[in-house]
Amino acid sequence: MKSFKRNSFFLFKKKISIDNLKSILKDHLIKIKLKDNFIIKEISSFNVFHDKSIIFIDGEKNIYNLDKMDICVITNNENNLKFDYPNIFLIKDLNECYNLTINSLFIHDDSPSYLDDFKLINGSHISKYSFIDSSSKIGRNCVIGRGVKIGKNCIIKDNVTIKNSIICSNVVICDNTTIGSTGFGFDFRKRGSLNLNPQIGIVFIDDNCHIGSSCTIDRGKIDCTYIGKNCMIDNLVHIAHNVILNDNACIAAQTGISGSVKIGSNVTIGGQSGLAGHINIGNNVIIAAKSGVTKNIKDNSTVAGFPAIDIKLWKKNIIRNKKNGY
Amino acid sequence: MKSFKRNSFFLFKKKISIDNLKSILKDHLIKIKLKDNFIIKEISSFNVFHDKSIIFIDGEKNIYNLDKMDICVITNNENNLKFDYPNIFLIKDLNECYNLTINSLFIHDDSPSYLDDFKLINGSHISKYSFIDSSSKIGRNCVIGRGVKIGKNCIIKDNVTIKNSIICSNVVICDNTTIGSTGFGFDFRKRGSLNLNPQIGIVFIDDNCHIGSSCTIDRGKIDCTYIGKNCMIDNLVHIAHNVILNDNACIAAQTGISGSVKIGSNVTIGGQSGLAGHINIGNNVIIAAKSGVTKNIKDNSTVAGFPAIDIKLWKKNIIRNKKNGY
Amino acid sequence: MKSFKRNSFFLFKKKISIDNLKSILKDHLIKIKLKDNFIIKEISSFNVFHDKSIIFIDGEKNIYNLDKMDICVITNNENNLKFDYPNIFLIKDLNECYNLTINSLFIHDDSPSYLDDFKLINGSHISKYSFIDSSSKIGRNCVIGRGVKIGKNCIIKDNVTIKNSIICSNVVICDNTTIGSTGFGFDFRKRGSLNLNPQIGIVFIDDNCHIGSSCTIDRGKIDCTYIGKNCMIDNLVHIAHNVILNDNACIAAQTGISGSVKIGSNVTIGGQSGLAGHINIGNNVIIAAKSGVTKNIKDNSTVAGFPAIDIKLWKKNIIRNKKNGY
Repeated sequence: MKSFKRNSFFLFKKKISIDNLKSILKDHLIKIKLKDNFIIKEISSFNVFHDKSIIFIDGEKNIYNLDKMDICVITNNENNLKFDYPNIFLIKDLNECYNLTINSLFIHDDSPSYLDDFKLINGSHISKYSFIDSSSKIGRNCVIGRGVKIGKNCIIKDNVTIKNSIICSNVVICDNTTIGSTGFGFDFRKRGSLNLNPQIGIVFIDDNCHIGSSCTIDRGKIDCTYIGKNCMIDNLVHIAHNVILNDNACIAAQTGISGSVKIGSNVTIGGQSGLAGHINIGNNVIIAAKSGVTKNIKDNSTVAGFPAIDIKLWKKNIIRNKKNGY
Repeated sequence: MKSFKRNSFFLFKKKISIDNLKSILKDHLIKIKLKDNFIIKEISSFNVFHDKSIIFIDGEKNIYNLDKMDICVITNNENNLKFDYPNIFLIKDLNECYNLTINSLFIHDDSPSYLDDFKLINGSHISKYSFIDSSSKIGRNCVIGRGVKIGKNCIIKDNVTIKNSIICSNVVICDNTTIGSTGFGFDFRKRGSLNLNPQIGIVFIDDNCHIGSSCTIDRGKIDCTYIGKNCMIDNLVHIAHNVILNDNACIAAQTGISGSVKIGSNVTIGGQSGLAGHINIGNNVIIAAKSGVTKNIKDNSTVAGFPAIDIKLWKKNIIRNKKNGY
Repeated sequence: MKSFKRNSFFLFKKKISIDNLKSILKDHLIKIKLKDNFIIKEISSFNVFHDKSIIFIDGEKNIYNLDKMDICVITNNENNLKFDYPNIFLIKDLNECYNLTINSLFIHDDSPSYLDDFKLINGSHISKYSFIDSSSKIGRNCVIGRGVKIGKNCIIKDNVTIKNSIICSNVVICDNTTIGSTGFGFDFRKRGSLNLNPQIGIVFIDDNCHIGSSCTIDRGKIDCTYIGKNCMIDNLVHIAHNVILNDNACIAAQTGISGSVKIGSNVTIGGQSGLAGHINIGNNVIIAAKSGVTKNIKDNSTVAGFPAIDIKLWKKNIIRNKKNGY
């Protein structure tokens, strides 16, 4: 998991201590165990732990050594009370508490208070708080947001928006593409723009990637959406929040990858494929065009169809249908 | 059906009376019955009737009480002559007569005479004839067209174009999305940009909607394309002209909804689904990802597959195939 | 195949002779036969032959009369040595030699040295070296690149990027669409932005086409991507490099056409369809929505499903499943 300085992208609204948080969440609190009080500096996830942070835990989960840092667990599961967590809030509605907490702590681009400080440079709006290597080229009508880093020899074409993202070197991003937009995360039972989970992660695009036109790559909820080295992504591809796409992927046009999917190295995905959320795709996997992948796929597999199965079985089925006159 | 003032979006080219229309359509006229002559002020549809208007009727259809208003029926079906319509033009080619009439009456954004009167405000082109509440936030490189209304506390991100649309309150529209573009309507036998049916309806987006990046929501042909309250729409979603999407929908990425589809409340649609034109989807329906829905779906159903069927049958079929070694 | 002046779009980096090319490709050369030395002025393809040019030939192929012009064949297949080619380079890695040669010869928009000379006109960035008929209308936040020609009475809406393209008359291009972007071409075994095959062809859009919102039409690799007269293309459609789409096509939303597909006249393609690369679709073909077409389709056929088959068989299969309770 690539680390990043959250505060470069998302400014603090105000300083909030664990004690302050108690009153923010007061309508949802069931039980509290508190050893420390501290100013909240960060949000931890299961991937990255920060000192002076809070972590949201859905369901029962024992994370060891959390007592080595100032961390406060916020959870909806009372079984977590039995673990060795020094600070824990047992609350009713985890989703709503997440929204309340994050919206109290951070300014993000789905909150109306989001400030921009753009300069118009060569026809594009570039945040004063972005960092673009002078060897890189930004086209016209782009928007490069606060905190964005763009490394050496990148080519950002025209009408591209990049926000909440770190772009490494030799990356090409084609026209009308959106990087770092808001992930589609909310409680299904509470719809509406006001209930969207604030997304305070980023997109991290590693060296030598090629991203086509009119793609959308959403930023992570807390951590990164990660695009590995040498990834080749065609046009109109959607990559949702928290996706981890390892090196050397090749993804053909109009493919959609749902949230939190993990994809190994050297994967090839045909056009118009769809991957269901939260699944793992192994290394060297080939996914045929128009596949709908609903389950984990092992290393070195080739799959096709919907639901995607081994491509040999898929072809066998087609041949059988043909024999039967269909 | 939400009402709107058509003339705020589409200026009249010139004043045309029913008598004038006779000469505009003279090459197509078969028979005329005329009680009144009036200046045409509006276009009626089966959903909304206006005084001093014309209405296009394809096939046989008896609408009661049209004699209470000044309305002139333009139809290709002589059976309509038997009904109590005070004013009726029987014509040969309804599609061409629609094009001729509307293009004579209105200026729209597929006609080269379309005028824009934009001011450059904070990096976006805003029509002088749009109405944006001061609590709402418009990003950079946006285009907000004539007549557009944007209510309170909306967030319009960057590189968004909104034309011919009414946006209510607390609506978030993400980057590179196009709202109010031209519906894909024309006579299949007469292709080419010059034969496109002029689209003089709007998009109406109700309170608290979240629209993702690179979506396209086309305006209605005569009435509204409607997006109900609290709808959550992911990235790269296409919503065609005249679609009615009721409250609390959740639509995952890369889904496409064809023209004139009606969708009930609390509907959930998985990614990469497609809905065929002119069908009705009930309330509380769940459509699994990658479905192709070709028929009406009843309230409270869950469907999957293409053509979409009850998800239990769809799963049964998959299990059978697995048993058979496919 | 429509001809165009490549040099209007892609400037020469420097003058390179066949002798110079020998040293550029020296690490890959196996054998050389040279009758002529000349300055390379053009790149030939199997569709168009130019004097003073080079041509890349993958596999064995005998092209007659190449000795009538100054052409140098660059090939990875030694069988080509037996043909009557006056000038031939037998090389090891055709793909890498293509990249080396073209990147030495031309400046293109995936190379950081690409220069732009834009004027800001009415809110859009227009290359000084583009040619736009005064009867055509360009919206706001567009980018019109070097060499682009736009004929009479076109309507280019807002936030559109058009590069490396010739647009004829009466063409409408809707918002956020990208025309002439980079084709997705590279050696599958060598991924990464640095290994992308330079694309030095164009997009040619013929008279009276309507292109929807958020479409992507990639330019050809060496020749044109061609969109014939009167084509109607809906929103979010992807058309890859080298596609030939003949007159009067109607393509519904979210369809994807892979590279080098050839499509006859009067073809209708339903939404969310996908066409595999390098196939031929006949005249008057109808492809039902959500089809996945993997093979050539004969004139006057109607197909459906994935893999697409005759629609009657496809329907028979569905009816059979229904009878069996699925």
